Parts: sequence; structure tokens; C-alpha cells
Amino acid sequence: MSEFRQDPVTGRWVIIASGRASRPWHIDRASDRPSSESCPFCAGNEAMTPPEVWAERDARTEANAPGWRVRVVPNKYPALENDGERFGKEDGFYQSMSGLGVHELVIESPDHVTNMAVLSVAQFARIFRAYRARLRALRNDQRWRYLLIYKNHGERAGATFEHIHSQLVALPFVPREAHDEISGVRRHFNASGRCIYCDIIQSQSESGDRLVLDSERCVALCPFAPRFGYETWIVPKKHAENFEQSSDEDIAALAECFRSVIVKLNVVTDNPPFNFVIHTAPSKEPAQQRYHWHMEILPQISRAAGFEWGTGVHMNSVAPEDAARSLRDARV
Amino acid sequence: MSEFRQDPVTGRWVIIASGRASRPWHIDRASDRPSSESCPFCAGNEAMTPPEVWAERDARTEANAPGWRVRVVPNKYPALENDGERFGKEDGFYQSMSGLGVHELVIESPDHVTNMAVLSVAQFARIFRAYRARLRALRNDQRWRYLLIYKNHGERAGATFEHIHSQLVALPFVPREAHDEISGVRRHFNASGRCIYCDIIQSQSESGDRLVLDSERCVALCPFAPRFGYETWIVPKKHAENFEQSSDEDIAALAECFRSVIVKLNVVTDNPPFNFVIHTAPSKEPAQQRYHWHMEILPQISRAAGFEWGTGVHMNSVAPEDAARSLRDARV
Repeated sequence: MSEFRQDPVTGRWVIIASGRASRPWHIDRASDRPSSESCPFCAGNEAMTPPEVWAERDARTEANAPGWRVRVVPNKYPALENDGERFGKEDGFYQSMSGLGVHELVIESPDHVTNMAVLSVAQFARIFRAYRARLRALRNDQRWRYLLIYKNHGERAGATFEHIHSQLVALPFVPREAHDEISGVRRHFNASGRCIYCDIIQSQSESGDRLVLDSERCVALCPFAPRFGYETWIVPKKHAENFEQSSDEDIAALAECFRSVIVKLNVVTDNPPFNFVIHTAPSKEPAQQRYHWHMEILPQISRAAGFEWGTGVHMNSVAPEDAARSLRDARV
Repeated sequence: MSEFRQDPVTGRWVIIASGRASRPWHIDRASDRPSSESCPFCAGNEAMTPPEVWAERDARTEANAPGWRVRVVPNKYPALENDGERFGKEDGFYQSMSGLGVHELVIESPDHVTNMAVLSVAQFARIFRAYRARLRALRNDQRWRYLLIYKNHGERAGATFEHIHSQLVALPFVPREAHDEISGVRRHFNASGRCIYCDIIQSQSESGDRLVLDSERCVALCPFAPRFGYETWIVPKKHAENFEQSSDEDIAALAECFRSVIVKLNVVTDNPPFNFVIHTAPSKEPAQQRYHWHMEILPQISRAAGFEWGTGVHMNSVAPEDAARSLRDARV
């Protein structure tokens, strides 16, 4: 079983997941041609994955058989497992605990698609409905304090399978990035009585110099202090703590907005490797009423390297005002 | 001029360095053959870099001409500049300041060498003497609060030139990673009256399960909670706040230890891309007496991806006890 360990100097937690070293590497580096015979994510190969925990499928089709549009399965090589011995160890200043958690894969298409940009808006909406369903289910499990949806697209962004997919992790604690956001949200609320994400949207609806796209229900913008070139956030206009609160109409609007951003990114930066994360309120955080869920799309055009690891400060050679202008003006 | 910007939610600082987007890309991806004619770091091509700020060179050779063994030059495409208008801006909750700082390159060999492992121990010592000289000089400049030496080796670790080199940055503030370390050092000192790095060395001299190498003056070990597979720290045995305090004998010992670790890493993980950082005490930090400088070698075999960016928690599939055993036993 994997293990959470804490660095005794910085307090930073890591996951030591030795079992993952044996996982296969399914990116065909030489070409992008479909390799659906051996791909465990393709329709028809359902037996190659653990049994599904959720799927959107055609009427009268059976679980773990073709007929699905989006399929969620446990990760075969999980970084965290949801059963096993629960332990916490303290050996002098070394602290560790059992790697309890959830690690699932959301397979975003039954076909061997390697680029999200070719999907329809309807398919994006199905993917987001899958996230919503799994987040709702896992939020009820009292063991998890934090839920994260994320995606690694392209080998440079950490993907090991080319067939498009995203991932869901449930953690028994609130991790540093979420903690820092929650502290910032609270600080701003205490000082001003307002939500900082609502204020960020408001400031961009006035100046608009970092605005990528402004629709009825969501906004896409480049943040003021992006870590990565062309980093883009999608924020719902209506204040909402959790992604899971999204209505079908919210999800349809998000699908439209997200697809536009991905298509624009592909045009401007030539199908970049990218990560995205959905930051939603922690499961049991009393301050969650002040949180405002959002998506962060993180293109991996340049790389975090020695400077970033040594300081925690990112160097970014694309000003967000320039990135937003290019994305706004992209001919799609 | 570049700009420091702070994220209004998390407080995270970034450097927006638009000028760096135009820098050339000098890694010959197809092969490793020397391309010394066009390489600005090779002896004979000194005119292709800004004038040197320091060099170890043969007697009776002139600055910016051949005859050097290690050469330090300002980065031609600096992320930070050491003159220019000093400003701080506050626009609502958006804070920024001028990108004042220093960004230098340490060219580690006059020959077109692409892998440090082929260097002699004497050459490693020259490189470390270059670091010491520049750190000593820059520590006297009252504008800088933090100095970092780092290296990007290999394209996957962020290198844009294959000719071996490292980099030095001076910052006008103490960045997050350093801040977290200093807080941890202080917390441990307040609780126990001891230095935590000294205690880490002590605990490994007893159990030794994460020990890679133990020499008279330094220790190489895999940390308890490594972010990366085969992450290895080199820590001087004698408590010392600053790298710049190192004597010639300390540097000779460090050169020997560091070269051994690099050779071992190359054997065990097949010449991996890696970063390293030297963490030395901040320039004007009153608690610096409690700090203990060290090197962190960070192989980039797996990648930080969506999970890491979304949580700040690293997944690592190589337990440090296994990594240390492999490195200890490597036949070199």
C-alpha cells in the first residue's frame, strides 16, 4: 500500500506509491495513429480495466460492455487505495500515514480520440456530468476531506495513455494548494465581505485586458499572476462553492466555454500538452461557503525546472495580457 | 523589464519575463554530437555571451578570451535585471513590482561537454569555487535577500542549451520554498534546541536506510519524503549556514561526493534529466544561524503533472529506501 509522508523540514506531504512504477506506458511516441487494439480505454476492451463505477451509456447496454459514452473506472495502478489498514506512524520527527484515498479514471470517449478539441459540446457536457456524479458520490464518504479532478494531456504534461481521459482523486486531508486558496478566500472575505473570485470576474468585466471569453454563465480569463504561459481559468459567474452544485444548464454552458478555450489554445499554441484541475470546496471545510469553484487550464509549453523547484516561484515568459489577446483573437 | 506579480488568492509570486520568449533553443534533439561552432558556451566563442563577471583562467590569459576553466557571465536573456526603474504597483488587490535581480550563467567547461559525469573531481571543485565567489560577491549587495544556484540538465529538466552550465539568481525577497525551510528549521530549533539537518544526518548515521554515501565532510542521502524518484540531498556534516563559508577543503570533499552521486545516478537511472538546487541561508535573515545549507538533486524521471499542480503534493513511485539502496550498490 502506498504511504503519505511529510517532509520534517517544510511540512510538505508526498505520496510514496511504489506500486505505480510497474504501470505500462501507452503513448505511441512515433505517431498519433490509433492503437485501439491494445488500448484499455477503447470500447470493446472494457475487460482490460477494473469494473466501471459509473458510465453514461445507451439504453439496454450492460455495464462493462460497449454502448457507453463516458466511463469511470478505478485506476488500475492507483496512487491511493480506498481500503486497507489505516495507520499513522511517528518515528521521531518523521511522520507518515497509510495511502488511503480514491483514484479513478474518467475515460472521455469510447473511440480512440487523442485530442479533446475534436469532441462535440455534447460530449464535453457528458464528461462534466461524469465529474459531477462522482464528486457527489464521494462527497458523502466521511473519510475524504478533499476531491480533485485533473487531466494530463500529452506526454510532456505527464500523460501515460494517449486515449483522452481525466482523473479523480479523493484525499483524507486538504492539500497545500487548496489550503492556500482557502486562506486567501477567507482573508479577502474578512477584509472586504466579498468573494475574491467574484471580484476578479468583476474587475475583468471592467478592464477586460485578461479576458478570453465572456458568456452568460461563465468567464474564461488569464490570471494576473499565471505560473504557465497561456494559463487560463474558467470561473462560473454565479457564486458557487462546489462543482457538484452545477445544474445541467450550468454544465452545458461550461462545456461550451471549455471547448472554446481548448480550441483556441490549440490554434494559438499548436495543440500544446496541458494539465487542468478543477478546484472545488473541501468536503468538510466550514469556510466553504466562501469558496468559488473554478477550473485552471495549465499549458505545459515551458517547464518548471531548477528555479521553480528551488524557490516555488514560477518564471513565465508570456504576459497574461498578451496571452489573453491572442486567445481572444484566435480564428477558430 | 520583467515583473514580479503576486496571485491575489494564494499569495504566490511569479516572474513575468516576456523578454525570454525570444531566446534561442540550443539543444540538438537528434543527437548528442558536439555543435561547438554555434555554441555560445564553447571556448573561442566568448564574444557570443555578455562579458564575463568571473572566471578561473590560466595565467596570462585575457578576460573574454580562451584559457578559462569555468566562466560566469550574465544571462543574455535574463529573467531579472539588476538595474532599471524600481517600482511597486498596487491596483486593487493586484500587486506587482519591478523584476530587479541578478541572473547569471556558470559555464562548467570550456569544451562542449553535455554530461557532468565525464568531468574530473578537480573540475567539479572549480565549479563550486565559482559558486562560492559569486555568492560572496552578491551577498554584499544590500538589494538582494535571497541567492539560489540551480541547474537544469537535459531538455526534460528545462535545459535550453546542452553545453553543461548552471545558473545563479539573486532575488529581492525570500521565496516560498526558502521561507518554508526556514520556518521548519526555526520550529525544530525552538522545540529541541537542535538543527534539524544535523538531526537528519544523525538519524541516518544510525539507521542508514536512506544513506547513499557517507564521507568525512558530507553525507548524501535520499530524504524521507522525496518529491521525485531518486531525489538525493547532499548535506555538509559540519553545521554551516552558508555555502559561501565553505573552505577549499570543504569544496574538494563536496566535489568528490557530488561527482559520485551523479555517476551513481547515471548508472542506476541511465543518464536522467535532472535539476539541482543549492539552498543557502538568506542574505539578511536573522535566523540564519540556525540554517544549514545543502544541495537537492532532483531527477526528472517522472513528471509533475495535474495532480501536483492542483494539490502541491507530489506522487513518487520510488520509495527513498529503495532508491538509496540502488544508489549505494551501484557499480561505478
